[in-house]
Amino acid sequence: MTVTPVAFPDPPLLNSAGVHQPWALRAIVQVRSADGAVGLGETYGDAPHLSLLTRAAAALKNVDIFDLSGLVRTVARAIGAVDVPDRHGLTGGSTTAKTLAKVVAPFEVALLDLQGQAIGRPVHDLLGGKVRDRVPFSAYLFYKWAGHPGAAPDGWGPALDPDGIVAQARTLIDRYGFQSIKLKGGVFPPDEEIAAIRALRDAFSGLPLRLDPNAAWTPETSVKVAEQTDGLLEYLEDPTGGLSGMAEVAALAPMPLATNMCVVAFADLPEAVRRNAVQVVLADHHYWGGLRACAELAAICRTWGIGVSMHSNSHLGISLAAMVHLAASTPVLTYAADTHTPWQDGVDVVADPLPITGGAVTVPDRPGLGVTLDQDALARLHENYLRCGITERDDTTYRQRFEPGYVKRRPRW
Amino acid sequence: MTVTPVAFPDPPLLNSAGVHQPWALRAIVQVRSADGAVGLGETYGDAPHLSLLTRAAAALKNVDIFDLSGLVRTVARAIGAVDVPDRHGLTGGSTTAKTLAKVVAPFEVALLDLQGQAIGRPVHDLLGGKVRDRVPFSAYLFYKWAGHPGAAPDGWGPALDPDGIVAQARTLIDRYGFQSIKLKGGVFPPDEEIAAIRALRDAFSGLPLRLDPNAAWTPETSVKVAEQTDGLLEYLEDPTGGLSGMAEVAALAPMPLATNMCVVAFADLPEAVRRNAVQVVLADHHYWGGLRACAELAAICRTWGIGVSMHSNSHLGISLAAMVHLAASTPVLTYAADTHTPWQDGVDVVADPLPITGGAVTVPDRPGLGVTLDQDALARLHENYLRCGITERDDTTYRQRFEPGYVKRRPRW
Ligand SMILES: [Mg+2]
Ligand SMILES: [Mg+2]
Repeated sequence: MTVTPVAFPDPPLLNSAGVHQPWALRAIVQVRSADGAVGLGETYGDAPHLSLLTRAAAALKNVDIFDLSGLVRTVARAIGAVDVPDRHGLTGGSTTAKTLAKVVAPFEVALLDLQGQAIGRPVHDLLGGKVRDRVPFSAYLFYKWAGHPGAAPDGWGPALDPDGIVAQARTLIDRYGFQSIKLKGGVFPPDEEIAAIRALRDAFSGLPLRLDPNAAWTPETSVKVAEQTDGLLEYLEDPTGGLSGMAEVAALAPMPLATNMCVVAFADLPEAVRRNAVQVVLADHHYWGGLRACAELAAICRTWGIGVSMHSNSHLGISLAAMVHLAASTPVLTYAADTHTPWQDGVDVVADPLPITGGAVTVPDRPGLGVTLDQDALARLHENYLRCGITERDDTTYRQRFEPGYVKRRPRW
Repeated sequence: MTVTPVAFPDPPLLNSAGVHQPWALRAIVQVRSADGAVGLGETYGDAPHLSLLTRAAAALKNVDIFDLSGLVRTVARAIGAVDVPDRHGLTGGSTTAKTLAKVVAPFEVALLDLQGQAIGRPVHDLLGGKVRDRVPFSAYLFYKWAGHPGAAPDGWGPALDPDGIVAQARTLIDRYGFQSIKLKGGVFPPDEEIAAIRALRDAFSGLPLRLDPNAAWTPETSVKVAEQTDGLLEYLEDPTGGLSGMAEVAALAPMPLATNMCVVAFADLPEAVRRNAVQVVLADHHYWGGLRACAELAAICRTWGIGVSMHSNSHLGISLAAMVHLAASTPVLTYAADTHTPWQDGVDVVADPLPITGGAVTVPDRPGLGVTLDQDALARLHENYLRCGITERDDTTYRQRFEPGYVKRRPRW
């Protein structure tokens, strides 16, 4: 078991917590089997999480690659009952159960990768077999600065108004062929973001649109925005925080509400269902506890008629491959998945990242995840980590450095 | 793919639909892989079901043993949208979805058996790995006649009153070491069955007890029985029929209500949860669609805090092995599982049935299900099938032959 923290350049993408720092952190998990095969996993690289990963890895000796239940027990014993929340809060509240799930996930993915390699089958076969050959992703638009302050403008250009957002969408669609569009909102007053959605609708008449302000709005504002975007959005994502507020909005909104903030663990589902607070759940194996846990989540959503999509944080090619195998074997995947992949500008730790073409990834049928680690790239990205001076994602403090009066406030409007 | 109907002797066990016929029917599925391995599945042998199995088997050519999603699609295409209910109704209502699930299940188990053999791992490893080494079963008591009318009394003796039930429990516990007891009720007026439960409590003071009248009672009667058995039962199973009646009883009963009649498919879960109609679901891979479907069901139950146990119809050693692998890998299995195994008096189609000792089965770690077909026994049991003259289970008509005035009535009391 090896856990390697890495960092890679990240553009100044804005959200309701602040702005992305110049470096995004991840941790790469390698599990080496007795016969020399390497299983790969990828997760968050924040220091508190990294310390738990390291403790877990030390406890995982002579693991049976098929014993995924044993994996959970061993990790639970190794880290104890701890609650390590994210500072940014962009994936909802934290609990000891969610913390455990986050630590288990990359090891589960790495063991599934090893299982697949050992038996000569792709990971999707270990999840029941693929139900689709192509996994669609959405163009993930962000308001952004022209570049990080003090650095040269990046190649993406600024996006601070409807024109900038439409231009960004065009770039992403030209390069990747995306067939649906998601705008990360919660940055400007709702009217400006509604204007951006209208501009996107005009520019890309056939493509489904989504808006995700990360709980930046009150329930009242959320209902107003929902009414004003009636007919424009396939779903509105986390307009407001908490199941109670979401239920209030859902009762009045003309479109489905999606979430990766108020339903983030199995314990959230009973209340969410009882209140009909959300109509779409964005699965994320990184914090739901792995690919098999997300398959269970998808089964629950199927049973209750709740839509399923996939959430993304900044990530590299191991996570992309894991998402693709999960999506490939999920019988009811209602919407295209999110991915930050384009924002990484081709930087990766894998030698053979899965390409996005025509807005989708062709599901690999090679054994395991179907991607291999580029050890040189890993070393370079680890060097980045050691030098970049960032050990924990903190969008708020970074933004405050340039806007001293900035405060994170949810709801803001 | 081979589907072989079999019949084996069955004692005259009474229930709310009538009485077991002298022969119980099953169908044995064999899937032969290119390298000569044989995967095993077992299901109901009733003629309408058998005809669907045969259609499905004919469509399943050159199947990839790992493509379980493809299996469902192929079977669905082969049988079309048909609804083939059981005549006895002891496992609740029927739908096209449940009919499909019933046809898929034995093939899914056989493919998992083949997967396990191909990769040298037990089936429980394909379900996430075992969380327990021993799977507990309950002593499954039945009111019964001394023997089938016109035949010599069987070795079990009659059980038509509390003394007979206690004697039967003692026999089963002496032979198998069961640590919990279930009484199949719905046969005599509730007071007599309550008296049997009291007698069991006196005779076996430490053992948990259950009573299952198969929906023989009205909600009013159910509540009365529940009150009178307060403190005596770990759960009361299907006292009344339908989610509405069960919810009514559950609101007043002092013990949890269990079911294998009103929650029998995923589509039943939302209403059951909304009304808190049941507190324990008895999983049965034969009609939920296989082992993986039951694992999903268990995940749902875990999420909503619903207990899990396992239902049984008359079955042979392939089904027992499948149940054991599923139970072994189910993280939260709240109660000992049901099994009819003792009533088959050692008759089996497998050469190496898993033994029940100390009330439990030790989970096998051999590749696949860990049981092998006894081809001679299969031939003998198939001969039984051809000669026995029964092609569909019909407890009601069989009982009417000896009690012309008998009618199946649910509720009866
Ligand atoms: Mg979101
Ligand atoms: Mg029952």
